[in-house]
Order: sequence, then C-alpha cells, then structure tokens
Amino acid sequence: MTTSRLEAFSDGVLAIIITIMVLGLEVPKGDDLQSLVPLIPKLLNYLLSFIYVGIYWNNHHHLFQVIQKVNGTLLWLNLLLLFFLSLLPISTNWLGEHDHSAWPVVVYGMILFLSSISFALIEKYALRLDNQNEALQKSFKNRKKEIASTLLYAIAIVLAFSFPYVSIFLYAFVACLWIVPDRRIEKSLS
Amino acid sequence: MTTSRLEAFSDGVLAIIITIMVLGLEVPKGDDLQSLVPLIPKLLNYLLSFIYVGIYWNNHHHLFQVIQKVNGTLLWLNLLLLFFLSLLPISTNWLGEHDHSAWPVVVYGMILFLSSISFALIEKYALRLDNQNEALQKSFKNRKKEIASTLLYAIAIVLAFSFPYVSIFLYAFVACLWIVPDRRIEKSLS
Amino acid sequence: MTTSRLEAFSDGVLAIIITIMVLGLEVPKGDDLQSLVPLIPKLLNYLLSFIYVGIYWNNHHHLFQVIQKVNGTLLWLNLLLLFFLSLLPISTNWLGEHDHSAWPVVVYGMILFLSSISFALIEKYALRLDNQNEALQKSFKNRKKEIASTLLYAIAIVLAFSFPYVSIFLYAFVACLWIVPDRRIEKSLS
Amino acid sequence: MTTSRLEAFSDGVLAIIITIMVLGLEVPKGDDLQSLVPLIPKLLNYLLSFIYVGIYWNNHHHLFQVIQKVNGTLLWLNLLLLFFLSLLPISTNWLGEHDHSAWPVVVYGMILFLSSISFALIEKYALRLDNQNEALQKSFKNRKKEIASTLLYAIAIVLAFSFPYVSIFLYAFVACLWIVPDRRIEKSLS
Repeated sequence: MTTSRLEAFSDGVLAIIITIMVLGLEVPKGDDLQSLVPLIPKLLNYLLSFIYVGIYWNNHHHLFQVIQKVNGTLLWLNLLLLFFLSLLPISTNWLGEHDHSAWPVVVYGMILFLSSISFALIEKYALRLDNQNEALQKSFKNRKKEIASTLLYAIAIVLAFSFPYVSIFLYAFVACLWIVPDRRIEKSLS
Repeated sequence: MTTSRLEAFSDGVLAIIITIMVLGLEVPKGDDLQSLVPLIPKLLNYLLSFIYVGIYWNNHHHLFQVIQKVNGTLLWLNLLLLFFLSLLPISTNWLGEHDHSAWPVVVYGMILFLSSISFALIEKYALRLDNQNEALQKSFKNRKKEIASTLLYAIAIVLAFSFPYVSIFLYAFVACLWIVPDRRIEKSLS
Repeated sequence: MTTSRLEAFSDGVLAIIITIMVLGLEVPKGDDLQSLVPLIPKLLNYLLSFIYVGIYWNNHHHLFQVIQKVNGTLLWLNLLLLFFLSLLPISTNWLGEHDHSAWPVVVYGMILFLSSISFALIEKYALRLDNQNEALQKSFKNRKKEIASTLLYAIAIVLAFSFPYVSIFLYAFVACLWIVPDRRIEKSLS
Repeated sequence: MTTSRLEAFSDGVLAIIITIMVLGLEVPKGDDLQSLVPLIPKLLNYLLSFIYVGIYWNNHHHLFQVIQKVNGTLLWLNLLLLFFLSLLPISTNWLGEHDHSAWPVVVYGMILFLSSISFALIEKYALRLDNQNEALQKSFKNRKKEIASTLLYAIAIVLAFSFPYVSIFLYAFVACLWIVPDRRIEKSLS
C-alpha cells in the first residue's frame, strides 16, 4: 500500500480545514474603518489557526516523505489527527468571540495538545511498522521540539484558568518555533 | 480508462463531506464549561459520522487498489455511493438535535444502509466488468462482515421506532467492526 | 503543458460544488416524519443538480483523456465552465424554495444552457489547438446529443414562463440522456 | 523535495476559495425577476474575485512548472499567498454589500496588493534557491506586468477614498491584463 492516496486525502482535508475557518469571520456590518475593529482579534486568531494547520501540513508533508509503509492502523491514526484538527475551526471561532475567558483558551489548547499527541503516535507507529527505515530512525533521534511543544501546550492549558492571554501567547510562541520546518527530516534525507 | 481520476474525485468529495460536518457544530454561546455541555452529544454524533466517512474512505481505498477496469456505469455507481454519503452531514445534524426521537435515527440508519448497498453494487459490478481479476475474486469470497453490517443497519432501523438508543449503539458497534480495515483485500494483495 | 493539474483543479472545484449543494438542505425543525415532507422537493432538486455535476465531471473526465495540448486560453475556457457550474448550488436552492415559479426555473435552465455552451467551446478550442488529434476528431463527428441537450435547455427556458414543471421534466430528461457516458470518446479510445 | 504535493495542496485551497465565495451570494427572497436585481452587483463582484483566483491559479501553475527546488521557507511563502487569497471571499462579500463606500474597496485592494507582493516574494525566493534555473531566470527578465499591477493596486487604494468606482474599474482592468496567461514563462519553456 502506497502513501500517495493517504497524502492526497490528508491534503484535501487540511486544505478544507484551513479554508472553512475563514467562514467564521463575519462580514462587517458597517462600511467604515470602525466596523473593521471587532474583526481584528478574530483575524489574528484566524491567522494563528491558519499557521497551525500550515505547520501540520508541512510536518505531515515532511514525515510522509520518509514513511514508506502504510497499513490500516496508520490510516486510522492519521484520521485521528485529522479529527482533532477538524475541531480547530469551531474552537477558533469560539476563542475569537471570547478571547479573555478561560474555557475557550483551554479547549483550544486541548485540541493543539491532542493533535500533537496524534502526530507523535503516527511517528511512533510508522517506525514500529518499518523499523529498518533509516531516514525515519534518524528523524527520531531528536524529538526535543515536539516534546517541548506538547509540554508547553499542557502548561498553557493550566495557566489559562488564571492568565488566558499568557496561554494565547504560549500558543503563538510554539507556532513560531515550528514555522521553521522539521530540519531533522530534511537532513536525514540529504 | 484508469482509476486515478475517479479516486482523486472521490477523495475530494469524501474530504469535503468529512469536513463540512463540523460546520454543523455551533459555536457555544457562553464562555464557560456549562455552555460546552449541549455540544457533547453533537460532538459524539459528529465523531460517529467522521468514523463512518473514514471507514468508507479506507474501504474505497482498499477496493480501488484491486479494481483495474473502470467504465461509465462504475463511475455512476461510485457517484451513487457519494450521493448517499453526502446526505450524512445533514442527517448527522438532525440526529444531533433530536437523538432521542425515532425518525432522525431511522433516517441516519437508512443512509448507512443505502451506502452499504451502493458499496456492494460497486464491488459486484467491478467483478462483472473484470471477472479475471484474481485479487478481486479472492476479496469476494468472504463478505460476512459486509452482509452482517447491512443486516444490522436494517435491524437498527426497525428497532429505532421503539428503542432509538439501541439503534445508535448498533451503528456505533458496526463502526467498531470496520475500524479494522478490510483484511481480505490486504491478504489477496500480498 | 500537461493536463494533469488542470484536471486536479477541476476535480477539486467540481467535488466542492457537488458537496456544498447539500448545505442548502436545511435540517428539519421537528423530529417526526411530517417534518421531512418539505425536504422532499428540495432533495429531488438536489439529486438533479448532483446528477448534473456528475455528468459534467464524467464528460470532463472523458474529454481530457483525449485532449493532449493545453494553453492559457483553454485554462480560461475551463474556468468559464466552472464559473457557470459554481452558480448551480445557489440556483438549486432558489429552485428548491420556489419550484412552481417561472424565474427560478428559467435561471436554472440558463445555467445549464451556458454550461453546455462552455463545454462545447472547450471541445472546439481543444480541437483547433491540436487538430491532428485523431481521437478528438473522431469524438467530434457525432455531436447530436450535445446539440439536442442545448436545444432542449433553450426550449425549456421558453416553456418555463407558462409551464415550469414541464421545464423541470425536460431538465431531468436531458440528465437521463447523459447518465449514459460519452460512448463516442470511449469508442475512439479503443 | 518535489513540488507535487505543494501544488496539490495549493490547488485544493484555491479550489475551495473560488467555490466558497459563491456561499456569499444569498438565495433571492422572492421568485420574480425583480428579486434578482439586488444580486447583480454581488454577482459581478463574485465574477471579479473568481477571475482573480483563476489568475493566481494560472500564474501559480505556470510558475511551479519552472520551479524545481522547494524548501520550508518556500512552503511558508506559498502559505502567505494562500492566506491573503483566503481573505478574498469575506472581502468580496463586504464589497458586494457596500460597493459605493471607501473602506470595503480599500480592503479589497489591500488584499490584491498583498497577494501580488507574496507572489513576487515566491518568485524571488525560488530564484535565490535555484539560481542556476535558466527557465526561471528568463521568466524574470520582464516583470513589467507584475510591477504595473502592484502599482495600479496602490493607486486604486488611494483613489478609493474619493472615487471608489474608479478603483473597482482599476481592479477589473488589471484582471483583464492578466487573463492573458504569463507568456514569459510559456516562452522560456519552449
């Protein structure tokens, strides 16, 4: 079983997730600059989620360049990742309307946390399935950034009950870490 | 005629179906944990439909790895399957709002029933079109799980008039059966 | 320039058009069989449009198996077809709400008429661009069904002012003609 | 790293952007010709945005036929372009409701301006990444049309405060310039 159709399906789902989030931005009611103001936090919020879907697409793209073997379980782990990411638009819209409240920030963080766990499960299972794959092994030696991100999400979730803005800052900070693509895999390929 | 564009189009439609279902989840009105509560049955419902679309995508993926010949009739049988699956989002949303009532449960079951019939028609027609295809023949010897699922949907539809929750449990039970991908085809390929 | 990316983009757009039409079906308000009744004409209407998008996808698929050369003008003619087809969902929804009125039926027919003209323009231009393509030439010898459909759309548009239901019957009748895929091209390939 | 998955993802996002814009067109409330009248400016507006997404798809298609090398930074520059284009639907809908006001016209122009800047960044970075690519070099010698478009967007933004209709005319004028596909690259390939 090749990875091409799995990649095509994931590309489709990620392309739709990244695009339907924009449906959460409501057309301003007035026609002046003032009516754009309430859109600004939502727009920043949309930008953050857009970057996160972009990060997952990039990392997914990198990972499936080294993964050679696919079976049914890997397809389902991939669907688990897509399921959590599919909840990002509604969570983004909830956050966009209540960005000073604890729970919308907690839920957003939990989706990021569960997505990162799902991505790690894909990596681990792919390595178990194909433990002779040297490129995959090399890319696993240094998982610092992934572990740090997952921990930072967990910290941000706890902090959200007292300082929701700090949590949002942490989410944005982790996103910045990842805009740099996964050099481990890039290196292991060259 | 190759299967590649048929697969690409089906992937596109299934990717969109699986993603627009999330548009049926409304952004909570409040900003506390309490306002998330009414979302829970809808979320479980969305998860079930997400799994069903995932199952059809996986089985479709498996089936079209062994199907070699495509003609116009097969394209239309494939579109028939996509048509029934395209009704899943609206049926999911109806069920999400009235999960204790008979008819939303009946309609949901009918869509599952008709989708399984359509999938069986694709399999049968593909075998008629290419009756020398040994991998396809092998994968047809054991259709127990498919027949059992179709029967369970029929039973669940009848039960829904008296015990809608039992029917929903049956839908979830069949989904669990299928999360294990179609080993018949996997074996016939190896 | 190859046709692969043009096909992929068209597949994407057609897959989205065929799927977002389902968003026009509103979730029933009640939970009984009665509340499904107002959905029936809309559902039939959705089915008709679903079949039309399916027809265009099938014929597009067939046509681009024989088209070898693509240039900028052909890309734009293809976008013209996609533009008209993209208006089908809103026209379908308008028709679903007023299926006894002249204008929704007229507009629906105009979209079908303009789509068929756009498809004919793609065929003609592709032949001019690559006039040595024998498969394309053969497929052009018999354009009876296409010309008949375009004429029937025109007749249906005129009739809609007096007998909208006759027009809808004609649209459905033309759809039935086309469910049989384009055998001309299938033959010219074999 | 090949360009194929980047192209597939971009095709998916562009296909969705071009199609969800149609969701901004509301189903007319009445059933007569009169009720179609308020739709006309919105429809023209949708047509203009449809053409713009078509232009970007065409130019993207042309550009990635000559680009051979891709790295993480290029993926992010591509996502930057997709981000600005993803704002086109909401901006189109805002413009459709207030096409005589300055700010909706200004915002629409800013999105076009930022998209053209992003596209230029992709071109420049791709050339830096692969400065031996002769096809890419040739296609860069004549960037008149791109520079002219970017300048015209800037002029239109300024003019929008006094003459919004002139700005809309300028946006439509630039679109006409680009319907002719990028002959530079077509030539450099032949």
